Amino acid sequence: MTLDPSTTRSVLISGTWRAANHQKTFSPTDPTLNQTIDHAFPVSEWSDCDEALDAAVEAARELKSVASETIADFLDCFASKIDQSKDALADAAFHETGLAKSPRLADVELPRTSNQLRAAAQACRTGSWTLPTIDQPAGIRSCYEALGPVCIFGPNNFPFAFGSVSGGDFAAAIAAGNPVIGKANSSHPETTRLFAQLALQAIEETGLPKATVQLIYRTSHDDGERLVSDPRSGATGYTGSRHAGLKLKAAADKAGKPIYLELSSVNPVVITPGALTERGEEISADFLTSVLMGTGQFCTNPGLVLLLKGSHSDTFIESIRDRFAAAPAGTLLSPSVANNLASSIKTLCEFGAELLVGGGEPEANRCAYANTLLRVSGEAFLSNPEGFQTEAFGNASLVVVAEDLPQLCKAIRHLEGNLTGCLYSNTDGSEDEACQQISQELAPKVGRLLNDKMPTGVAVSPAMNHGGPYPATGHPGFTAVGIPASLIRFAKLTCYDNVRENRLPPLLKAENPLSAWRCVDGSWTRDPLS
Amino acid sequence: MTLDPSTTRSVLISGTWRAANHQKTFSPTDPTLNQTIDHAFPVSEWSDCDEALDAAVEAARELKSVASETIADFLDCFASKIDQSKDALADAAFHETGLAKSPRLADVELPRTSNQLRAAAQACRTGSWTLPTIDQPAGIRSCYEALGPVCIFGPNNFPFAFGSVSGGDFAAAIAAGNPVIGKANSSHPETTRLFAQLALQAIEETGLPKATVQLIYRTSHDDGERLVSDPRSGATGYTGSRHAGLKLKAAADKAGKPIYLELSSVNPVVITPGALTERGEEISADFLTSVLMGTGQFCTNPGLVLLLKGSHSDTFIESIRDRFAAAPAGTLLSPSVANNLASSIKTLCEFGAELLVGGGEPEANRCAYANTLLRVSGEAFLSNPEGFQTEAFGNASLVVVAEDLPQLCKAIRHLEGNLTGCLYSNTDGSEDEACQQISQELAPKVGRLLNDKMPTGVAVSPAMNHGGPYPATGHPGFTAVGIPASLIRFAKLTCYDNVRENRLPPLLKAENPLSAWRCVDGSWTRDPLS
Repeated sequence: MTLDPSTTRSVLISGTWRAANHQKTFSPTDPTLNQTIDHAFPVSEWSDCDEALDAAVEAARELKSVASETIADFLDCFASKIDQSKDALADAAFHETGLAKSPRLADVELPRTSNQLRAAAQACRTGSWTLPTIDQPAGIRSCYEALGPVCIFGPNNFPFAFGSVSGGDFAAAIAAGNPVIGKANSSHPETTRLFAQLALQAIEETGLPKATVQLIYRTSHDDGERLVSDPRSGATGYTGSRHAGLKLKAAADKAGKPIYLELSSVNPVVITPGALTERGEEISADFLTSVLMGTGQFCTNPGLVLLLKGSHSDTFIESIRDRFAAAPAGTLLSPSVANNLASSIKTLCEFGAELLVGGGEPEANRCAYANTLLRVSGEAFLSNPEGFQTEAFGNASLVVVAEDLPQLCKAIRHLEGNLTGCLYSNTDGSEDEACQQISQELAPKVGRLLNDKMPTGVAVSPAMNHGGPYPATGHPGFTAVGIPASLIRFAKLTCYDNVRENRLPPLLKAENPLSAWRCVDGSWTRDPLS
Repeated sequence: MTLDPSTTRSVLISGTWRAANHQKTFSPTDPTLNQTIDHAFPVSEWSDCDEALDAAVEAARELKSVASETIADFLDCFASKIDQSKDALADAAFHETGLAKSPRLADVELPRTSNQLRAAAQACRTGSWTLPTIDQPAGIRSCYEALGPVCIFGPNNFPFAFGSVSGGDFAAAIAAGNPVIGKANSSHPETTRLFAQLALQAIEETGLPKATVQLIYRTSHDDGERLVSDPRSGATGYTGSRHAGLKLKAAADKAGKPIYLELSSVNPVVITPGALTERGEEISADFLTSVLMGTGQFCTNPGLVLLLKGSHSDTFIESIRDRFAAAPAGTLLSPSVANNLASSIKTLCEFGAELLVGGGEPEANRCAYANTLLRVSGEAFLSNPEGFQTEAFGNASLVVVAEDLPQLCKAIRHLEGNLTGCLYSNTDGSEDEACQQISQELAPKVGRLLNDKMPTGVAVSPAMNHGGPYPATGHPGFTAVGIPASLIRFAKLTCYDNVRENRLPPLLKAENPLSAWRCVDGSWTRDPLS
């Protein structure tokens, strides 16, 4: 499907690409040039959402009688099409996000995305993600089941791996048996449209209900809130800014609709004196790689470093300051990211943070901002912990230098919920007592605790938690990355009490046709019931 | 601890029974006499909540280094004390709730309560409830962990099994490693106080932090909202009226605090013509037992019966009408329950329901209301589905007679979320196609689907789901009954990424010291890592 660039792009509703019901349009920006791209995308009126919801309800109903195998086939087929369209997808995404094609879009994020879809397909095939639980003496069985239409709002920073019709939330929602209404991120709508095209092809090839994947680009804020709280909606996945996310959360909460949010995180990194003495330069290099990766636009970007006062810390700060100064400033995703970063830095400085390097205004000819390092004392941090946790999304970090261990622990105790928390210490174990104190403070604040490792790598592992206490996310019990655990978010628990064998879902039948892992009378097994 | 009945009861804060900070008091009613009981209970000021929260935070911190075995010992010890105090507890609860001592309080609800605590102890001992997940190649491990202080608001209808310091939420929160701040239900504060006394004794005997269990009786509505949204609070469990629950939910949601609610449910029961032809009288008798059990004051009370038009249904309705008329009206829990029931019946009649038996005003000399059966056509139901789902909590039920199967299915499609849904059909399978249609509509609306069985029995089974879509609860993925699944609600997911072996929690250590079930590289096993 090739469109005249002057034509407003179509939305995908109920298996058909059609003109949106719209009065306004928008266009993304090429951040490498800070210039508007000559593609118009519609701002859908409510009627588009309404039609998409109706179609999704019907698709949800049909999906209930589709075999898991077929849904898995769709995910695999879609994954293959993504791999085959690598160049076109990377071109579109580079144009809209400025993220490098290599090493990043084509060779890192794209295979991650297709492999994530394949992992979801595998989870869908076996069904073990539904945690089937059988109490034979009581005649009671339960498992998680599809919940209904899932609305997905993807973020700006991972156009593939977190994309609204390609990413982790999408893979999880589909593998759990739900149709998806994707709302493209406004900074990369063309990239999202290409994914939706491939998804529709895969739907047609595998015979899923046509409205299994639908796409709109943008709505008014009011219509967004209406969408996530509509009675026809099953649940929502949102990754993006805290401000917009909390508005959607309020609407969904009021309607009793589950909404899973990934909002913001400064990802504290604590580095002990022993670690700095032992391998300060190595950690400094690791930190630089992590903090500037993707121009700092990772959800898990280490935006807050906590150190103890002393010469080792001063040396470390000098080292990272020099590395910040020497590294070229990467391109940011959009003008608003650059402006928000400048604004956050200004705010942090107003609160009293010392600017060690960077700062200033965004560049004019591209979306970019100087690599920025800030420093503040533990005492100052504790005088305004909320203010100093202002997220500076991008290539910036704030170093807190605490007077002593109690002050360091106190600072951690004042942290909001975060996705990650890292602790670097020396290797001989002599700091273990201090580390225990630090860990005890840090663990309750984060979804993922790391040792001796930077937080930016988020493996697609069954043991991953890409989540954390509010306001990092909306609920501390769920992960957005990691299969099969991420699927549970888009499912409801259903108990079958004395339900006749021929009416049970396959996963709860005696013969266990999918050889799923099931907890039978307290023991996990893949065997059929005896 | 024996108090002069004229003395205002003490609250339990931080291990000490002390006078509440209060200006107002309240007294419960003996519903068998409709007379105020001569015990005064304080309405705590915020300062009581504040102190309880501070103490709970400290207890939560201490509990992190307490062995699971010790927490389990506390639960077992508390269970034994409950068994030993059977008579005193049943006396107090009878006095405050009018529920029969036998068969109910002493011989059904009490053993259920102590056995639930023992099941929680067992879950705590093995730790399998934390769903430990280990990815050896990636060096990533995760499990659920204690979340922090849990506030529990117990309901009026199960003073033991759902009591705020004795029931299912309590057992789950403690077994997950959290301290509990119990807020007594105002209709049975003395009963709750007795439980808290036993809990404190068990705390002292097993050496848990003293503030592991705290008790207040009542607060202002504002302070209740403040409690569940306080930064020090980890999560809240609430069982009670929808109106009060939604206010707490709004406050907790806004603060990003998990809140688990059990709000209301009419528990639809669909009975096919074949079932009525085959065993109408048997079903009628089962229905009567279920609908009048506990004077209809079960969360899972069958308040809505859906039938198809025909002589079999007319006969069935006559049968249950006669049984309603013949059965004595039981005592209700409180004056407000009786008044609310009368008000709901009036509302349903105003909407056009036909009163078949019962109705009228509550009795004057005790809390009671006539057994009430109402009837409405499918067409009328569909003209005002929300209105006809007005919960009439107590000994009442509404029968909907649908014109045909499509109308029956349409009525089900208009149901709100419910805890349970039942389907009775004939046994020869000739109705299976219709049953499939009905089940497809019913299953998404309910937490538990039953066949040929009334909904009022809620087994404490690992496969139980005592939950369901909003507004039955606040989230469709969690159960309030059933161990170990109910524990997850009061836990956060924590991932350990590259964390050193000596710093891992026991459940994630290579040797698997508790022999917990763990998902290791995709397979469930109780073995240590090799």
